[in-house]
Amino acid sequence: MKTSINLIIKGFININKKVIINGWVKTKRNSKYGISFISIYDGSCLKTCQVIINNTIKNYKKILNLTTGCSIEIIGLLIFSLGPMQNFEIKAIKVNIIGVIKNPNTYQITSKYHSKEYLRKIAHLRPRTNLISATSRIRHTLSYAIHKFLNKNGFFWVSTPLITCIDSEGSSKMFKVSTFNFKKIPYNNIGKINYKKDFFGKKTFLTVSGQLTGEAYACSLSKIYTFGPIFRAENSNTSRHLSEFWMVEPEIAFATLEDIINLSENMLKYILKIVLNKRNDDLFFLHNKKNINYLIKFLYYKFEQINYTEAIKILLRSKINFKFPVKWGMDILSEHEHYLCEKYFNGPVIIKNYPKNIKSFYMKINKNCKTVSNMDILVPKVGEIIGGSQREDCINILDKRIKESKLVKKKYWWYRDIRKYGTIPHAGFGLGFERILSYITGLNNIRDVIPYPRTPNMIDF
Amino acid sequence: MKTSINLIIKGFININKKVIINGWVKTKRNSKYGISFISIYDGSCLKTCQVIINNTIKNYKKILNLTTGCSIEIIGLLIFSLGPMQNFEIKAIKVNIIGVIKNPNTYQITSKYHSKEYLRKIAHLRPRTNLISATSRIRHTLSYAIHKFLNKNGFFWVSTPLITCIDSEGSSKMFKVSTFNFKKIPYNNIGKINYKKDFFGKKTFLTVSGQLTGEAYACSLSKIYTFGPIFRAENSNTSRHLSEFWMVEPEIAFATLEDIINLSENMLKYILKIVLNKRNDDLFFLHNKKNINYLIKFLYYKFEQINYTEAIKILLRSKINFKFPVKWGMDILSEHEHYLCEKYFNGPVIIKNYPKNIKSFYMKINKNCKTVSNMDILVPKVGEIIGGSQREDCINILDKRIKESKLVKKKYWWYRDIRKYGTIPHAGFGLGFERILSYITGLNNIRDVIPYPRTPNMIDF
Repeated sequence: MKTSINLIIKGFININKKVIINGWVKTKRNSKYGISFISIYDGSCLKTCQVIINNTIKNYKKILNLTTGCSIEIIGLLIFSLGPMQNFEIKAIKVNIIGVIKNPNTYQITSKYHSKEYLRKIAHLRPRTNLISATSRIRHTLSYAIHKFLNKNGFFWVSTPLITCIDSEGSSKMFKVSTFNFKKIPYNNIGKINYKKDFFGKKTFLTVSGQLTGEAYACSLSKIYTFGPIFRAENSNTSRHLSEFWMVEPEIAFATLEDIINLSENMLKYILKIVLNKRNDDLFFLHNKKNINYLIKFLYYKFEQINYTEAIKILLRSKINFKFPVKWGMDILSEHEHYLCEKYFNGPVIIKNYPKNIKSFYMKINKNCKTVSNMDILVPKVGEIIGGSQREDCINILDKRIKESKLVKKKYWWYRDIRKYGTIPHAGFGLGFERILSYITGLNNIRDVIPYPRTPNMIDF
Repeated sequence: MKTSINLIIKGFININKKVIINGWVKTKRNSKYGISFISIYDGSCLKTCQVIINNTIKNYKKILNLTTGCSIEIIGLLIFSLGPMQNFEIKAIKVNIIGVIKNPNTYQITSKYHSKEYLRKIAHLRPRTNLISATSRIRHTLSYAIHKFLNKNGFFWVSTPLITCIDSEGSSKMFKVSTFNFKKIPYNNIGKINYKKDFFGKKTFLTVSGQLTGEAYACSLSKIYTFGPIFRAENSNTSRHLSEFWMVEPEIAFATLEDIINLSENMLKYILKIVLNKRNDDLFFLHNKKNINYLIKFLYYKFEQINYTEAIKILLRSKINFKFPVKWGMDILSEHEHYLCEKYFNGPVIIKNYPKNIKSFYMKINKNCKTVSNMDILVPKVGEIIGGSQREDCINILDKRIKESKLVKKKYWWYRDIRKYGTIPHAGFGLGFERILSYITGLNNIRDVIPYPRTPNMIDF
């Protein structure tokens, strides 16, 4: 019976049974007694499966030449292992060599240590390392847990469009999407670029958020979420930014800021619990087992909530000489986040009610007319992982905010319609999928938690 | 207790209990005895909830003015209903009017019939109709069923990149992605566009498939799938094409064409079964209940499998005067698909082993050197919903195919690496998410099964 290594390791396959496994050689050791020990991985779990090959096997000589990365099929008996590292092993009956490596010297995934920077240059081979395969499995389990949590709680997944003609955030750098021949950009007779001749008949971009189109669905189906890719064309070369990344954006009708704060805390704890249960092997590997406590603590930690104004006071009281001086009205930047999370609260913190001038036009204005009803969730080391807000549901105030933000009102006609026809209080947040993954895996460069990172000048695959 | 209408309809809420519901007015009827009957929907299910409002309620006069689409909160007692249309109803204790409609004449979602064409122009409001809300809920349940099936079977979700510098299919029309100022396209000193100055330092596009980058992960983790948006810049204005759509692409290591045929048949039946169970109300609404039999039949139907060559013979024998005359070597087009599925087999059919000249470079060449090891699954009315193949795993043949297809070998360096280092037989397929949704919902225009359709000259939201 063909089986995965995961099922063998987990004890799902009967002992003394004939099994077939397919995988790749991780390591090989030849004993002087005519026995070859091969560790095989198939990516289904972190662990390898040890195969014992006796020199009585027909193609034993060829087996002796196998190197790391060669693909093979093993037909053998599943037996208990006497070795300290595993409970099961396979005694080979037959070994089929499937794919060899002609020049093992050129194969970049050897058993020695590779730096993460080096691995990024071979993004097509790096999932063959424990580091990236463990991260990939955690990524899957996390994504599935998100779908599971939201489905269970009555949310409908809505796929909001990626190609757009509006700027959802009001002030983002966006990628242009076009089918123009760049050598023959068409102009109209008043000397402007004639976008009517482009594919969509308009100037189009890659979206920076699914929120606005998602809101229209929340205002029909009550509870929705988007889970899809998002694009930002900022020239950021930091360990926290990608030009293309995934975002989860739940949006709830008849809801306030408090509702989404509760939802986000529940969701974060639920998905983390699933990952801790299902991917303990992978997490232990990434964290050296003993450094995993911060994740357990997270499950039982009641998130601190403070107002922006209070956060500014704390930062001022710290007497630290920040690169960007602290004053009311400024944005809370990476260095400030670090202080609040790691030094002051030593855990996740929710900052609420930011000044309206530094926030997007769609956030609901508070009664003081100075701040908006929003929240950011910060976690140690990674910083902001969630940003959310109650949405402005009053058409007159929204129109004022569109004007203040110097946006073209006409373009938001349909977004304004939602406030004209049966408007409701509603709220939502965006969870940066790679940010939370970075927090859970402890990989502090976000480029290592997405299969093929896109950043300025980086698009090799 | 605040609850959704779905939970009330399903009988999860205790009778004679005080409940709070939030939603929108669907219809309203005032009896001459001073009672107002309001049907409320909240999008959690197809059905509405009837609320009985006595004229003793404080704001009764304002309630009389409510129109379709107004948002309200009802606090009331859940009681059994004597009416024939529902088992439960709510006797209002208090009615909070949340959002009214100032000019009901301008509200486009009335209770009368709206054509699908009309609804596409108000894509932000159309989920408020039964037609689109039912479809949206089915869309969610189908997507969740796909994740569930693949997770259960040991597949890992991999998010392959959207912005790319290669053409995965070898001959697609692609959208360009750029941050160039179109008025000042930079040129280098030999008169060519200087893409080094663009965001990624290369000419970049929106991907037409996640397959190639997905393959690299399958050749590490054994079983993976992508589920994400895909883009095609063809100028197609048909009921089956979108410029932006979602695709599910499972890819399996150590697998042949036969393996993915089995997988796809099992997957289609599994996901359909879940949708039939969980969304029967929505499906009954869309299909008028009695027309739903073709979906039940699908569950028990053993898919027919024929070779391309046989399909051509069947088409020739049909003596039908097709617009595109039938001969060996041609692609099987929409009109031919219709004949095979609807007339000849009267059910889903799998066509295998197409001529290599009309198929992509990555498909495995059969021993006859004329055909490739691929398959398309066709279903009545919709046509192709799945296309898959075993992949070429021999580096020499792959190189030959890249050359024949006039692709730039250098660009595929990493894809070729997979064949150089421990190559394996592997196979995968792509399921057009909107195509299968169109089949299940019976909505024959694909623009009605995606929230905001993108097609040539259509990008209003």
